[in-house]
Amino acid sequence: MLASIISIGDELVLGQTLDTNSAWLSQRLAAVGVDISSHHCVGDSQADIARVIRETSNVVDAIIVTGGLGPTDDDLTRQALADVLETPLELNQPWLDHVKAYFEKLGRVMPEKNQIQAMIPAGAKMLWNNNGTAAGIHATIAHRFDRTRPPRQVDVFVMPGVPKEMKGMFDRDVFPHLQSRGGGAVILQKMLHTFGVGESTVAEQLGDLMHRGRNPRVGTTVSGGIVSLRIGARYDNLAAAESQMLDTVQRCHAALGDLIFGEDTQSLHGVVGEMLKQSGETVAVAESCTGGLLAKYLTDLPGSSSYFQGGWLVYSNEMKAQELGVDPKLIEQQGAVSEPVAEALAKAARQRAGTDYALAVSGIAGPDGGTATKPVGTVCIALSHSRGTDVRTFVFPGDREMVRDRSAKMALTLLRYRLAGKSLPF
Amino acid sequence: MLASIISIGDELVLGQTLDTNSAWLSQRLAAVGVDISSHHCVGDSQADIARVIRETSNVVDAIIVTGGLGPTDDDLTRQALADVLETPLELNQPWLDHVKAYFEKLGRVMPEKNQIQAMIPAGAKMLWNNNGTAAGIHATIAHRFDRTRPPRQVDVFVMPGVPKEMKGMFDRDVFPHLQSRGGGAVILQKMLHTFGVGESTVAEQLGDLMHRGRNPRVGTTVSGGIVSLRIGARYDNLAAAESQMLDTVQRCHAALGDLIFGEDTQSLHGVVGEMLKQSGETVAVAESCTGGLLAKYLTDLPGSSSYFQGGWLVYSNEMKAQELGVDPKLIEQQGAVSEPVAEALAKAARQRAGTDYALAVSGIAGPDGGTATKPVGTVCIALSHSRGTDVRTFVFPGDREMVRDRSAKMALTLLRYRLAGKSLPF
Repeated sequence: MLASIISIGDELVLGQTLDTNSAWLSQRLAAVGVDISSHHCVGDSQADIARVIRETSNVVDAIIVTGGLGPTDDDLTRQALADVLETPLELNQPWLDHVKAYFEKLGRVMPEKNQIQAMIPAGAKMLWNNNGTAAGIHATIAHRFDRTRPPRQVDVFVMPGVPKEMKGMFDRDVFPHLQSRGGGAVILQKMLHTFGVGESTVAEQLGDLMHRGRNPRVGTTVSGGIVSLRIGARYDNLAAAESQMLDTVQRCHAALGDLIFGEDTQSLHGVVGEMLKQSGETVAVAESCTGGLLAKYLTDLPGSSSYFQGGWLVYSNEMKAQELGVDPKLIEQQGAVSEPVAEALAKAARQRAGTDYALAVSGIAGPDGGTATKPVGTVCIALSHSRGTDVRTFVFPGDREMVRDRSAKMALTLLRYRLAGKSLPF
Repeated sequence: MLASIISIGDELVLGQTLDTNSAWLSQRLAAVGVDISSHHCVGDSQADIARVIRETSNVVDAIIVTGGLGPTDDDLTRQALADVLETPLELNQPWLDHVKAYFEKLGRVMPEKNQIQAMIPAGAKMLWNNNGTAAGIHATIAHRFDRTRPPRQVDVFVMPGVPKEMKGMFDRDVFPHLQSRGGGAVILQKMLHTFGVGESTVAEQLGDLMHRGRNPRVGTTVSGGIVSLRIGARYDNLAAAESQMLDTVQRCHAALGDLIFGEDTQSLHGVVGEMLKQSGETVAVAESCTGGLLAKYLTDLPGSSSYFQGGWLVYSNEMKAQELGVDPKLIEQQGAVSEPVAEALAKAARQRAGTDYALAVSGIAGPDGGTATKPVGTVCIALSHSRGTDVRTFVFPGDREMVRDRSAKMALTLLRYRLAGKSLPF
């Protein structure tokens, strides 16, 4: 089964926005054995959109279109699809009622413009959108190249360009349809995630597991400091794929040990949150350079109030002294970015909040503030717990955003190891 | 003049690599008045590459191809181009000599495989590569749709996929050629950003400005709740483009007023941070449901310590009472998510931190915790300042992440209006 992906939007062809939707869709499609013929980005032109859908439909079995379903005059995907199908657009009453009810709930009247978002080509199927006001569309183009054979069916799925809306719609309605049409080889994919050491260190520890010809194949990819293993198994039956996948996953765990914190859609903060929920313990924070990011991670999960008590954003030295009682002389002598200050912050936060754990982060996120002995990227992280305080100093590479993000993730990692009764292996 | 961009590589269609080359090329092309019809990503298949070049050549005046010029068996762009041109590949001796000399300088003999990188279609022009071993190609496809008129010329430029090699080659050889063919159209682009009302409301307020045929053209796009106006002006001289752009920007400002918070690369938190730097004033926060996200935004900017003092993460009711003195009875009577509690938090934060402003956010981010009168998404935001406290209640749509993000952005918006001496217009 062969598919192409078409992304619509002037911002894409003008180079103002990167087409991340197509990459995400490709990965999803590969997982069910669908081959990708091509990606296309087309501007907000009805004729261009229709032309590319037509050309692509000559070659593939399925076309995934994203974008151009907004309520404004430059959203023309549904009109272009109607052109290709040679059918008029029709109002989908259930969707219109849904959108009207949505606006009503927000205490507003649906703007007239939003009505277009309930229009779909006659004969096509409406796809539900749980995250926005644009309905998706599933249509079929029937090609009859040869009168002696049944017409070839090309599935066309049109989804909103907003990634969240697109992903929800794809996973619920489009993916199962393609999976049922797919057939053939079984492809299983799995991701294992690590944080703390670099990609080349992970690769060295994996050794032969990363050989190119191997099946299941093991590759690495890095995003936001998280080094992930991509494992792909391709076999002609599910049983073989599953048992070989299991074997390779076990070998990866043996090679990397506790460096692996989770798999697939699991996040570092999600794993730490779950560990806290399970242990019934609580945490507080005292953040300087991360400025709220660590707490943001800890509260990303629904139900985080069961383990996250709160904290202090001690950005200024006055706040460090006034709110958490850090001796101004200590700050003066050791510097705000020092292990004694981080330790004092963590201890005070744990005591004041009455929690089992408290994390403190003080560092130099840059671009200014670095010195010869404490360059930009120097970050002290302390974890106060019932048996003492763990304190570590790191020097993170990268810009302000990276230093802040790696600091928060390292603080979470310190807590993850402590919750498992272990200390950092690096 | 109309162009399309084609990127070659399995890693692109498999979604393992984002196509950043096309975005870069689009921006460069737009700057000399070349319109972009489309982007295409095609895998390492000679037939697919040839097909997309052929299809695209029917529509545009120039095709920019990147990738597939490496020395290995899956690099097939030059062969595909030769197919389209219906000419054989020929050895380019000057380039071969250059590559051989390059390897010699490194003390190595050129691997046999690299010879293919000196092959270009007969009649095509070789493009020099200062940063690698693959020669580029400039060919012309002549379309003769109508015998009574001269054939239409489509320029095809093929460049390596390695960004550094591609960019060097483009700027030296391809850009000047396109500029000379461009016919002098000047295209200017500008973005204006708003936050607070939906895309359809922005579109309604813009009215005729969004008409499709208008020049400069005005479109809208949404990302993270930020509704942005894209303005594109196309004229045959710079003076006209600049004056018309200025006129349209002014009209947009007249239509939307203070809803517009910034332009082009400016962010909401960046604008608010700059306003605070300029006024020399300071801010603190008391965050409940946003759990640090508001402070994270306020500290994203280098130098934020000049205006951000710190704050309290009062996630639990105990923290609200203990750290910021909110009367537990008030919380019991009104609920933690209520305007009186938000107001009390903001006032106490401002007083304790000794800042000019303090923002407090208390809400129900979900998915749990909603009630009939206070559904998920209900968020109370208070801003304490020298002349009193502004308090507002919002109901934000979407999931936990969206509710938290919109809450933080709305808090920043409240502060932005106050810093300008105004109150929210919605």
